[in-house]
Amino acid sequence: MPQPETTRKRTRDPEAKRTAILDAARATFAELGYERATIREIAKRAGVANGLVTLYFSSKENLFIAAAAPQQIVQNVVGDLEGLPRRVASSFIQQMESGELAESFTALLRSSTSDRSVARELQRAMREQSITAYRQVSSDDDAEAKVEMIVAVLNGVALGRYVLADGLLAAMSPEEVIDRTTELLRTVVLG
Amino acid sequence: MPQPETTRKRTRDPEAKRTAILDAARATFAELGYERATIREIAKRAGVANGLVTLYFSSKENLFIAAAAPQQIVQNVVGDLEGLPRRVASSFIQQMESGELAESFTALLRSSTSDRSVARELQRAMREQSITAYRQVSSDDDAEAKVEMIVAVLNGVALGRYVLADGLLAAMSPEEVIDRTTELLRTVVLG
Repeated sequence: MPQPETTRKRTRDPEAKRTAILDAARATFAELGYERATIREIAKRAGVANGLVTLYFSSKENLFIAAAAPQQIVQNVVGDLEGLPRRVASSFIQQMESGELAESFTALLRSSTSDRSVARELQRAMREQSITAYRQVSSDDDAEAKVEMIVAVLNGVALGRYVLADGLLAAMSPEEVIDRTTELLRTVVLG
Repeated sequence: MPQPETTRKRTRDPEAKRTAILDAARATFAELGYERATIREIAKRAGVANGLVTLYFSSKENLFIAAAAPQQIVQNVVGDLEGLPRRVASSFIQQMESGELAESFTALLRSSTSDRSVARELQRAMREQSITAYRQVSSDDDAEAKVEMIVAVLNGVALGRYVLADGLLAAMSPEEVIDRTTELLRTVVLG
């Protein structure tokens, strides 16, 4: 019996394969950590050939960076400066709640205590994207330092709520976490 | 030749032995991670018998908590509420700069991605101490949530500056990090 049209289309679609590889990469890095995760294992979970992973992402390090970079957050930065803190906070927390970003974040933490260079590359990629996005919103001279402090706040909240996952920060509603994170980001962005 | 008086006194002093064990524990946990660190190795580095470590701290978990808990920070909380954000920020950053707390923090992160229960116990111990200290300064109803957000800010700054140790946050002077962290803590504490 031939496969239904939609399934055949899907598996032939390069964008769908790319997404499948990124999803498999996030799950594998989070489960095994950066060092133990292999391209072979990621390809197997994504249901694609090893060569395709290398064709799309060239190296495990690049794949890790692509899988972990929270690109939607950066896209959501664009808009008015006054509303920026809440846009960033809700975009970040919502993606963490869905589990999508939480896996990458745990993988980042795990790799940061073993192989620092990968965690640094990832942070560098995120930082550059964030600074570029921030500059579209504000002509602030202090943009780089502000982006650093925004990242520090988001990392600290994520560590408490999703990695240690204990205590009041883990018990709060997503809305309360967004409100409290927004307050902190307002201080960074608006002084 | 007999040892000089001061050295003999030191090694007989239970408080000095306790400190030596805690120092050795911090170094060992940071280097090997929680799981691979053993009481035997810590005792060896501290120059004491294994039994003494167990006598003082009863278990590896308790030793980890005692080694990692930043007690000086909690002590420094006491004073006027207005000055609290700067006292906490400078106490934390200064201890991180000296490397004393940075080792514990790296050990905490490493254990949080492998054995979460220890990291949770430690966070619980720190949280209880911090809330008790905070209540001496303020009768705020929201004390618990504020302590959580203070811990999140400190963790986020520490992750960027001392663990990833890259980018502008790592390049800033300690004074600038203290100033920027103080600003964030002021938002948490004073609204």
